[in-house]
Amino acid sequence: MTIASHTPGQARAMIRSGHRFTTTSGISLGYAQANIVILPEQYAADFHRFCTLNRKACPLLYVSAPGQIEAPTLGEDIDIRTDVAGYRIYLNGELAEERSAISELWQADFVTFYIGCSFSFEEALISHGIPLRHVERGANVSMYNTRIPLQPAGPFQGNVVVSYRPLKPADAIRAIQITSDMAQVHGAPIHIGNPQQIGIDDMASPDYGDPVDTLEGEIETFWACGVSPQAALTQARLPIAITHSPGQMLILDTPNWALRNA
Amino acid sequence: MTIASHTPGQARAMIRSGHRFTTTSGISLGYAQANIVILPEQYAADFHRFCTLNRKACPLLYVSAPGQIEAPTLGEDIDIRTDVAGYRIYLNGELAEERSAISELWQADFVTFYIGCSFSFEEALISHGIPLRHVERGANVSMYNTRIPLQPAGPFQGNVVVSYRPLKPADAIRAIQITSDMAQVHGAPIHIGNPQQIGIDDMASPDYGDPVDTLEGEIETFWACGVSPQAALTQARLPIAITHSPGQMLILDTPNWALRNA
Repeated sequence: MTIASHTPGQARAMIRSGHRFTTTSGISLGYAQANIVILPEQYAADFHRFCTLNRKACPLLYVSAPGQIEAPTLGEDIDIRTDVAGYRIYLNGELAEERSAISELWQADFVTFYIGCSFSFEEALISHGIPLRHVERGANVSMYNTRIPLQPAGPFQGNVVVSYRPLKPADAIRAIQITSDMAQVHGAPIHIGNPQQIGIDDMASPDYGDPVDTLEGEIETFWACGVSPQAALTQARLPIAITHSPGQMLILDTPNWALRNA
Repeated sequence: MTIASHTPGQARAMIRSGHRFTTTSGISLGYAQANIVILPEQYAADFHRFCTLNRKACPLLYVSAPGQIEAPTLGEDIDIRTDVAGYRIYLNGELAEERSAISELWQADFVTFYIGCSFSFEEALISHGIPLRHVERGANVSMYNTRIPLQPAGPFQGNVVVSYRPLKPADAIRAIQITSDMAQVHGAPIHIGNPQQIGIDDMASPDYGDPVDTLEGEIETFWACGVSPQAALTQARLPIAITHSPGQMLILDTPNWALRNA
């Protein structure tokens, strides 16, 4: 986590003018960030249903109208074509390229989905004194494919991808309490304990992110992860779809506290 | 509230075969019920956005695919054409008729929105020892138009409609705690105290439902109400739209406890 003190507006202006961050984690402490999925209107109804039916994996903070580049409830000057820290362009489900802006690719029928991000609940856990090993080590969180099915909608289907954090039992209980109050950023864990029960056979080899040690006496704690919709999206093999790059999110004006259940 | 002991499946079967209830409130104690909005696919994307952008007024439990009559995560045998206790048919925004089934009106492009209902949190409040005066008197809850704007989406716009419950201050605090944990059925109140602050000038004349006394020492407690999307829907003057009739909901297999935040 990079500790810095840019306001969300400042951070977006820097990104818009070409500044590159290693990751947006920690860039605007106290403020939420969003996973981004952009796709043509033709597929938007099914993807919106997919998110609504799978709220723990895909908690929606905002959905744009076709062609709308703003997200007024999330930030007063957001331009989704330039303000995400990094973009991935998928063609027919294959990663074709990464870009720092998508102005030249923008289509009037693009619909943008703004999805809650675990950075918000990680900040809450840390502020409550719960250490997160991958953050302490400057690593990406470990993520695993599971056998927990997602509700399908149109071409979008698959299993939940989980993020993993090893915690002392007392910290796991407190983490469940804290994240239960944050449904807009994945909410409570979906599994604790034996990874094999949800189809994870090799904890040492995460499907995404970096591996992390589990120490004796720690309990395995798994949250539904924002990679789940991205995995379903690429499996659907749309002609074009655009997402943020891993760790390169959209920084919002929304304070993390405002994501508490209300 | 009618106290009875029908399972949700029994209650739906009775409704399907023509049985009429005064209200579905209390018919299957312990189980959730849903507000229903049905409209042609052409308007569904905007209405889905409207619900996602206004989650406190329009908490979505399920959204169907076009033509889909089932809602498998809410009940194993649901047929939305026959299982709602009463239907209202709107043509060009005007209430045209009420029916007990819509099989003859069904269109292959109809999309159904299943929206959380305050009956769930009322049962939770009562079970926690918080008396609700309108329930004790067998009356409908008081509902008021406000000046709190809803986020617009396409043709759907308007202000929040609130439901009103007068509570002793200690009960209001407990009610805030309990309903904060039920985001799928409107969550916490959106206002307490002075009604004029949200644009209500005459508490004795609710815009919907029955009036209820506020006793000395009680605090006015207002929740976002499922009538908000219905009001926005009729204002949009769609060629056809179908909703449940007031108090004539769809009874779900979903236990109320499963609507707690998770």
